[in-house]
Amino acid sequence: MNIADIVYRPIGVIHSAHTRAEQTPIQPVFAEGCPGRVDLLPEFAAGLKDLEGFSHIYLLYHLHRAPPPRLLVMPFLQDVEHGIFATRTPCRPNPIGMSIVRLLRVNGGTLEVEGIDVLDGTPLLDIKPYAARFDHIVSARNGWLDGLDEADAQARGRRQTASSCSTSLSTNQFGDS
Amino acid sequence: MNIADIVYRPIGVIHSAHTRAEQTPIQPVFAEGCPGRVDLLPEFAAGLKDLEGFSHIYLLYHLHRAPPPRLLVMPFLQDVEHGIFATRTPCRPNPIGMSIVRLLRVNGGTLEVEGIDVLDGTPLLDIKPYAARFDHIVSARNGWLDGLDEADAQARGRRQTASSCSTSLSTNQFGDS
Repeated sequence: MNIADIVYRPIGVIHSAHTRAEQTPIQPVFAEGCPGRVDLLPEFAAGLKDLEGFSHIYLLYHLHRAPPPRLLVMPFLQDVEHGIFATRTPCRPNPIGMSIVRLLRVNGGTLEVEGIDVLDGTPLLDIKPYAARFDHIVSARNGWLDGLDEADAQARGRRQTASSCSTSLSTNQFGDS
Repeated sequence: MNIADIVYRPIGVIHSAHTRAEQTPIQPVFAEGCPGRVDLLPEFAAGLKDLEGFSHIYLLYHLHRAPPPRLLVMPFLQDVEHGIFATRTPCRPNPIGMSIVRLLRVNGGTLEVEGIDVLDGTPLLDIKPYAARFDHIVSARNGWLDGLDEADAQARGRRQTASSCSTSLSTNQFGDS
């Protein structure tokens, strides 16, 4: 098996109002209304052509502030230990994060998005369109997530989301990196 | 903006009956019945605990045979040029592939999966559970994909899928790398 290193380079940076990991919603579904901005490096802006036709996009990013990898973790939503690959917890062997966010607007190399659960300053690796044709899975079994108490999951998922998440999108609230 | 290199290391390898890029289905939805096997490196097997409760999983992998990056591409499903980020075409700035596949079985560090649209020998980067709670998006606009002719898309998507894809899963049909 070839286990040579794989080298990627950020194509941009994700901006959000989330500056503290412990207050960042754990998934977009718990980050409703949280505005975000994705700044692509200028040389990649041409790759955004026709993206605006999609209401939702995947962001793939490097979890740059993830703790060191662990194979067994206690996810945010439950006080039970699971294998890292059965969770979305950041401390993964390869700390690649994935979020499905709503795409509001494309301005040149900048995307305005909503439902952002990503720390401010996170390096962006890739953008893919969300396509119901490919990504809408019916009747999936959802493992340990199926057994969660809904009210408890809601409370844990939001993790005292910063109040800024309920405000409208303003580019001024994001620091540039 | 910090554009330092990001280094990942494969955690395993994906095996499939697809050995030629031009005959590989372009998405799991066009690879129904295609069996696959994911071999994790032994040191990561413990991270699979409780994954078997999920009927579907995301595989994130390195598109190791992708052509050099291009910003405007003609996707497999349509003879119209789109920005690379509005498609799932492999020749991306960071060639990270993503597939949602059906998880059939976990045996130690080996996953048996179905609906595989990945080339045999592809280096695996991460596994995440598919969770309807997080990933089921309702009423998405799907850009240029919404306008496709269904019969044409089906024909293009399968790309003369190798007949082996309709057979049942057998570990013998995969070469070890």
